[in-house]
Order: sequence, then C-alpha cells, then structure tokens
Amino acid sequence: MIEGIFMRATLIYGAGDVRVEDVADPVLREPTDAVVRVLRSCICGSDLWPYRSMPPADEGQRIGHEFLGVVDDTGSEVAGFTAGDLVVAPFVWADNTCDFCREGLQTSCRHGGQWGAPGVDGGQGEAARVPLAQGTLVKLPMGEDSALLPSLLTLSDVFSTGHHCAVKAGVGPRTTVTVIGDGAVGLCAVLAARRLGAERIVLMGHHKDRTDLGREFGATDVVAERGAEGVEKVRELTGGDGTHAVLECVGYREAVETALGVVRDGGTVSRVGAPQYTDVPMDFGTFFRNITLTGGVAPARAYIEELMPDVLDGVVEPGRVFDLTVDLDGVPDGYRAMAAREALKVLIQP
Amino acid sequence: MIEGIFMRATLIYGAGDVRVEDVADPVLREPTDAVVRVLRSCICGSDLWPYRSMPPADEGQRIGHEFLGVVDDTGSEVAGFTAGDLVVAPFVWADNTCDFCREGLQTSCRHGGQWGAPGVDGGQGEAARVPLAQGTLVKLPMGEDSALLPSLLTLSDVFSTGHHCAVKAGVGPRTTVTVIGDGAVGLCAVLAARRLGAERIVLMGHHKDRTDLGREFGATDVVAERGAEGVEKVRELTGGDGTHAVLECVGYREAVETALGVVRDGGTVSRVGAPQYTDVPMDFGTFFRNITLTGGVAPARAYIEELMPDVLDGVVEPGRVFDLTVDLDGVPDGYRAMAAREALKVLIQP
Repeated sequence: MIEGIFMRATLIYGAGDVRVEDVADPVLREPTDAVVRVLRSCICGSDLWPYRSMPPADEGQRIGHEFLGVVDDTGSEVAGFTAGDLVVAPFVWADNTCDFCREGLQTSCRHGGQWGAPGVDGGQGEAARVPLAQGTLVKLPMGEDSALLPSLLTLSDVFSTGHHCAVKAGVGPRTTVTVIGDGAVGLCAVLAARRLGAERIVLMGHHKDRTDLGREFGATDVVAERGAEGVEKVRELTGGDGTHAVLECVGYREAVETALGVVRDGGTVSRVGAPQYTDVPMDFGTFFRNITLTGGVAPARAYIEELMPDVLDGVVEPGRVFDLTVDLDGVPDGYRAMAAREALKVLIQP
Repeated sequence: MIEGIFMRATLIYGAGDVRVEDVADPVLREPTDAVVRVLRSCICGSDLWPYRSMPPADEGQRIGHEFLGVVDDTGSEVAGFTAGDLVVAPFVWADNTCDFCREGLQTSCRHGGQWGAPGVDGGQGEAARVPLAQGTLVKLPMGEDSALLPSLLTLSDVFSTGHHCAVKAGVGPRTTVTVIGDGAVGLCAVLAARRLGAERIVLMGHHKDRTDLGREFGATDVVAERGAEGVEKVRELTGGDGTHAVLECVGYREAVETALGVVRDGGTVSRVGAPQYTDVPMDFGTFFRNITLTGGVAPARAYIEELMPDVLDGVVEPGRVFDLTVDLDGVPDGYRAMAAREALKVLIQP
C-alpha cells in the first residue's frame, strides 16, 4: 500500500473499460471496520458481466470482491483480529450474528453488503476497508509467503461457490452428478462434488484444457457436446436416467435447459451461475418428474472454516484454476484475457 | 358392481362433457392384477383441467384416479391380498419395488402408469382392474361401513399431495408456512403442515367457507388479498421477511409469482398445483435470495402407511374437504358443482 492519502485500485467505467487509478486510501470509519492490505485478489466470471454490458459512465465504479490480505488496522469494536493477521474476506461482508447469518445465509445478512457498492472498497486494489470486520474476516494460519495463498483465496468465492452448489444439490457418496460449465466455478464444483464423495461426475464443457483440469479435479466423464446433443450424451452415460444432481455453473437459460434435460427424476438442479435470464422452464414435465431447482449466490462465509483444513492439508487445490497472474497495472489485460477465454481465472498480486 | 359383462363408469368426452356409461367389467388380465370393487371415489381439482379444456372427442376417456374399495379377485402373483380386503389405491399405480419406488418416487416407477390411460380403468366407476396390485394397493384395517372412509380416501391423492408439498418444503416445528390456495389441496397442505409441527401457517384464499375450514385445519392467519396486495399482507404479518416455506397449491403462474413474493430468503417454494404454465420467474432476485423451487406430483404410495395411523386415530380429518356426495349418476353434476366452485370436493359413492 502506498502510504498516505492515495492507493491504487481498479474501477470499471463501462463495457471493456477497466482502469487502475489512484483512490482514497482506506481508513477506519466505523468502530466495526478493519483495514486490510490486499495480498491477493482475482477476477471473477461475474466481473465479466459488467465488463461485457455496462453502459459507459463518467464516474468509475470500484470492482472486485475476492481478496485475502494482512490486517493493517482495526476499529475499537473488532475483537479477535490485530494488525499483521493474515485474513481472507468472503465476497459479501456480513455481521455473522443476525438470524440469516446464524442460518448460514450471510448473503442475506440484515446488516451486510457488497464490495464495490458506493462508499465501499472493491477487492481489486491495494487495500480495502472491511465493514463489520469481526463477522466478515476469517484468520488464516500461515505467513504472507505461503504457497497456499491462491487456493486459500478461492475460499473467498469460487471454491465456496462450487461447494455451495454441490451442498444445495445434496451431493454425497451415493449421488451421481453432472456439472455444466468448465469455467473456474464449474471446475470448483467438480472438486467440491468429489470432496463430498460423489463417484460419478460428468463434466459438460468443450474447452479441452479446462476439462482436462476437471478430470484432475475428479470428473469421471467429459461431455463436449452442447444442447440436445449434450443432453442425449449424458443420458446415454447414465442408462437413460440422467444424474441425481446437476450443478449449473454458467448462468445462461440454455444451461438451465440442459440441466433440466440431464437431471434424473426426483433430482435437483443447483444453480450458481449468475442468471442472465428471467424465466426458467419449470413446466409440467419437470413437475411430473419432481425436479427441484435450488442454489443461488453462495454464502462463502458459512463454508470457509469447513473447507480450509482440506486446503491447508493439500487434499484439494482449488488454486489451480488460476492460470494467469498479473499485478495491479495488469488488471485491464487480465479482464481482456478472461473475456477472450485466453485465461481461465486471473490472479492479481498487487 | 353389476355382475356380468358391464359395469358403469365415468368417461369424459370433452370440456363440460362427462358421462356415466356401461363399460366392460374389469377382469384379471395379468397375474399381477387385482380387481377392486369401488366403495368411494372422488373428483380431483386436476380432473377439472380436462373438464375445462379438453377438445371434443368421439370416444370417451376413462377418468378418476382416487378410490378405495374391496378386493374382488387377485391374480396368481399378487401376494398379501385376498377377496374381501378393504384397500386404498394411490393415484398412480406402481410396482413399489424398482429403484424409483424404493426411493419413494412411485410416480416415476419404471413399470407403473396412470389410471384412465388407454386400457386402464379410471377410479370413477363401479370397479377397477388394478395393475401391479401388490405394489399399488394398501390394506385398510376396518369394515366397509367405517365412518373414516372419506378421510382414508384422501390418502389416495389430496391429503398425500398436501403432505408431499409440506415435506418437500422441509416443514417442521421451526418453519413458518404460507399456503397458497384454499382448494382441497391447499386445505390439506394446511393440515399436513400443522401435523408436521408448523406453528405459523398463513393461508392465502378468498372463499370464506373454505378458509374457515383452513383455520380449523391449523391456519393461524388468513390473507384474502391476492397478487401484490396479498404479498404485501403476508410480508406485514411476518415482519417483512415472508415465510420459510410456501406451499403452492393452485398451479397458475400468478400463484407461483405470489409464492416467490412471500418466501423468505433461503426459503423454499413447494408446488403441487399441476402447472398451467411453462415458465417460472426464477430470476436474479430469487437467485440472490437463494430461493428453492421444489415439489411436483405426489408419490402418494410413499406416504400412505405413514399418514394412515393419524387418520385412524382421528388426529387429522382430511375427509372434511368433501362437502358434496353423489352417486355415479350424479357424477356429471358433481363436476359442474366443483367447476362452479359450489362444491369444494365431491365424494362419489357408487
């Protein structure tokens, strides 16, 4: 972090227009705040939605919602954290004490909010003010130079999201699973399904380098075909029945249609791809087959403590989804690479 | 039953055109069949869909899928049933041994099927051939003159359907519930939710005689308003949050929209109203709120043994949804009365 009044952070001004600029250095505003110096951040598939569609604006908007770093300062009401602590932040901040948080739905926290909202820092910068820091942050038991930082960073969003998807679908040892999408979330969903014991995991995706990583993460079958042809292929692989669980990690209506096509009677489609649609074809056919549609934005905070030990032990290596690392100045290039599918997921090292 | 070659049964020829005619007397065709003399049948809300919309046909189609009666004859491969046994039939027949049946999804049985399908009797007649009788039928421990017959008949469909709706929504003692629809299924969903321990049950319906019965069944609040006004009212009643579970017992898209409007973040909409829509607005808002959409056609067979004791003990009296009784000749009038909402649910005593 540049000492003083300014730091550098990423702003988005419209589709294709991401800039790294000087912004106000974060300071404690509320006694519940902390200031965290960012060690690692990254670009999310969901950052690409505004990157593809945001109308041009005169004022930039802070962006980025995944980061880990070192506590720089804490407000008087923040217990359990001190300067120098290594911490990871989930992709929404939350008090972690309200009824929704206690139920594990921190994304609906009564007092929480989103990174990059007006007055709130984004994750793709040198530092961030963390509101409700005691509830939001989770301490990491290692040093700044740990080789595990990329995998630990995925607890902030992408691995927790894959895990949420699998949990909501009820994935367990007796479940057959289809994962739709070979992006970073889809691959993390494969990893999460495997970690939860699923033995049969069909990955639908057509980028060979990505599905190859999917196989290493636990996919037992890969289906490159899309649409009706892809549905037919998954049904062939499963004796005509489809799979108990379908993890929809894309967000387009076509992906949901595919999901409904490959799910077994009585099964569950769990979606974590941010919906780029308004309606879903849950028609009489899905009714007669007792199909459940579940999922949603992942309350990463609810899962971090549970997932961390397997990351620390090397049982899972979700950080392998990062295939390009940039510094802050390289962030606009990182967006371009991800949008062009030249990079799977971009790690930012400010 | 008329002894001999013919019996009387109900056929539908098109919208508004239901007739009771002589049809072939049922006989054993397969060694897995039984023949059952019907003691009680009834008209289902779902029978009203063809009654309202079926194009005129030259040949009538057998109708009715809820009945209880007395075993008249059994095939050589039907164990556990003998002539004279009182039995109830769930609203689809099933082998009760395939993998779907063992999972409690008899509506997806690999060898099962529907009443009234070509070559299969309907329930609204003097007798019925029951395919896969050993898997389909459940014995009832009382005589033909029991006053409990109407309530036991509801295990065939309407009470089991209400129960399925509540079970899929995860209703339990700590759940707040909204039931949408004051038809027989909605009222049975209230009863089922109460039986499963729900203490707060908001019933949305605007027919006072029906919502009055809903209150007796366990509804703690009644909201007569519909649409946005109804949503606002339920939210007012629940501190702005909506309820954990919403039981959608109508089948129109508007009802699903209302359901999504009154469900609490992280909650579940369970639908048992046969969908008269193709698409559901599971948009970004429902995604961000982690809403689950579940339910479907009820595998009544899976629930009959579980629900029967409470019916026998009088803990629940789902038979109170019947407010009109007709004989077979009165079936066309029964359809008219239900379609005109003059009757809530019509019992048929052949």
